[in-house]
Amino acid sequence: MFKVGFFQFAPRFGQVKENLSSVLHALAHTEADLVVLPELPFTGYLFENRTELEDLAESPTASATLDALSELCARGDFFLVTGFAEKAEGRIFNSSALVGPTGVLHVYRKLHLFNKEKEYFDPGDTSLQVQEIRGVKIGMMVCFDWAFPEVSRVLALQGADVICHPSNLVLTFCQETMRARCIENGLYAVTCNRYGTERRPRGELAFTGQSQVVGPKGEVMIRAASDQNELAVVEIDPEKARDKSITERNDLLSDRRPEFYRALVASSCKT
Amino acid sequence: MFKVGFFQFAPRFGQVKENLSSVLHALAHTEADLVVLPELPFTGYLFENRTELEDLAESPTASATLDALSELCARGDFFLVTGFAEKAEGRIFNSSALVGPTGVLHVYRKLHLFNKEKEYFDPGDTSLQVQEIRGVKIGMMVCFDWAFPEVSRVLALQGADVICHPSNLVLTFCQETMRARCIENGLYAVTCNRYGTERRPRGELAFTGQSQVVGPKGEVMIRAASDQNELAVVEIDPEKARDKSITERNDLLSDRRPEFYRALVASSCKT
Repeated sequence: MFKVGFFQFAPRFGQVKENLSSVLHALAHTEADLVVLPELPFTGYLFENRTELEDLAESPTASATLDALSELCARGDFFLVTGFAEKAEGRIFNSSALVGPTGVLHVYRKLHLFNKEKEYFDPGDTSLQVQEIRGVKIGMMVCFDWAFPEVSRVLALQGADVICHPSNLVLTFCQETMRARCIENGLYAVTCNRYGTERRPRGELAFTGQSQVVGPKGEVMIRAASDQNELAVVEIDPEKARDKSITERNDLLSDRRPEFYRALVASSCKT
Repeated sequence: MFKVGFFQFAPRFGQVKENLSSVLHALAHTEADLVVLPELPFTGYLFENRTELEDLAESPTASATLDALSELCARGDFFLVTGFAEKAEGRIFNSSALVGPTGVLHVYRKLHLFNKEKEYFDPGDTSLQVQEIRGVKIGMMVCFDWAFPEVSRVLALQGADVICHPSNLVLTFCQETMRARCIENGLYAVTCNRYGTERRPRGELAFTGQSQVVGPKGEVMIRAASDQNELAVVEIDPEKARDKSITERNDLLSDRRPEFYRALVASSCKT
């Protein structure tokens, strides 16, 4: 068995050390194998411009924040998936890192940027990949990626048992749609959403909380409130994500008919 | 504006004329532009073997049933999407027909067969296509196709405004998942499900009713009860299915990143 969870909180914009301190404190004694944090939980979300983001973004190979998280993982013997603002050779990505006791194991760069993120982040350029920890295959996606069924499907086809989904949600559709993602792919999904409001000169955003863990039949195993810190951990059975049968003659993945799906990649598929 | 609806009823196995009569009676005075019927609403569903199915299946070019429906459409000046058992050169498909006043306009053959259907139907071999009637683009899928997000996505990429979805549902996941299909593709979906029970020597199946029309934001516009005949019609605005924007910078279809989705067609895409 494998214990997954999330830590939902309300980061304060630009207060990286304070936000990190909140996480370190909350997770000092977790019994989880894997905990998911929100999207951009250290920098905050509502940047005024690219320059402000550049000042807060970090390279994963030189990040005091990610180093501190890795030390946390080492002390507690667990893994984290966290959003972070990634600086990489002049570009800045809205990324997610899989962090463990030995450091950063993998970085995914958000493929589908939401609204004003398009003004100050670069679009992701990393392929969708799964990573194995403790025998469990982990896929990562970030926030608005939920709206694109292709993302979780590609991860499922690689054998993902659990999709980790750091989020800063402002729309209301995601949580229920993630149940469909789990049903159609027969896997677990951990959506960690922030809550609270960011007020900046450029605008205001309210985030919707309700972080959740959903199982392979679309069952909501845990769902947080919309307005408070919550650390939740639940035991999952990865074997249930490997059994894709839904009748004795049907399998969610092998029943696919890819030859009829070519339009999905028309612009990049030479057939 | 455009009026869509469904006629949910409980076909009796093998009683083709009786089932047809129910439909002709129910739709004698509809004001809809387009009405969706269940999957296999004339033959019934729970075939004992291929021979029994062969005796009941019809060619769309020589079908007394589809001819009668076309005459119904001509009298009422509307269109129908109906499931039917299609005989074609020695093969039998679980198909859906778009029928209008002038006859059968298009046939779609179910790509994803459910459970014992695999024993007596041939897997569909038709591409997913949309058809335009009265300026509205119609896509068709059948029952278990709902579990494959690729189906509705391919139809959406062709500009489908409304997905017509004849069904004989026995699982409970479909109706809520169809809301996700509408949200992720920004279109309407009409799921017409049968209700009632079929008892045959080989087994028994209970169908779940709850036919529905869902809008582009996932809103349930109508949902039927689980255990009674219902003819429902609702006005939709196809323009709402053509506006795929969800923020001023986001579009559900043009934000896709197909170059990262190649795994979806890996076996048939030479890249």
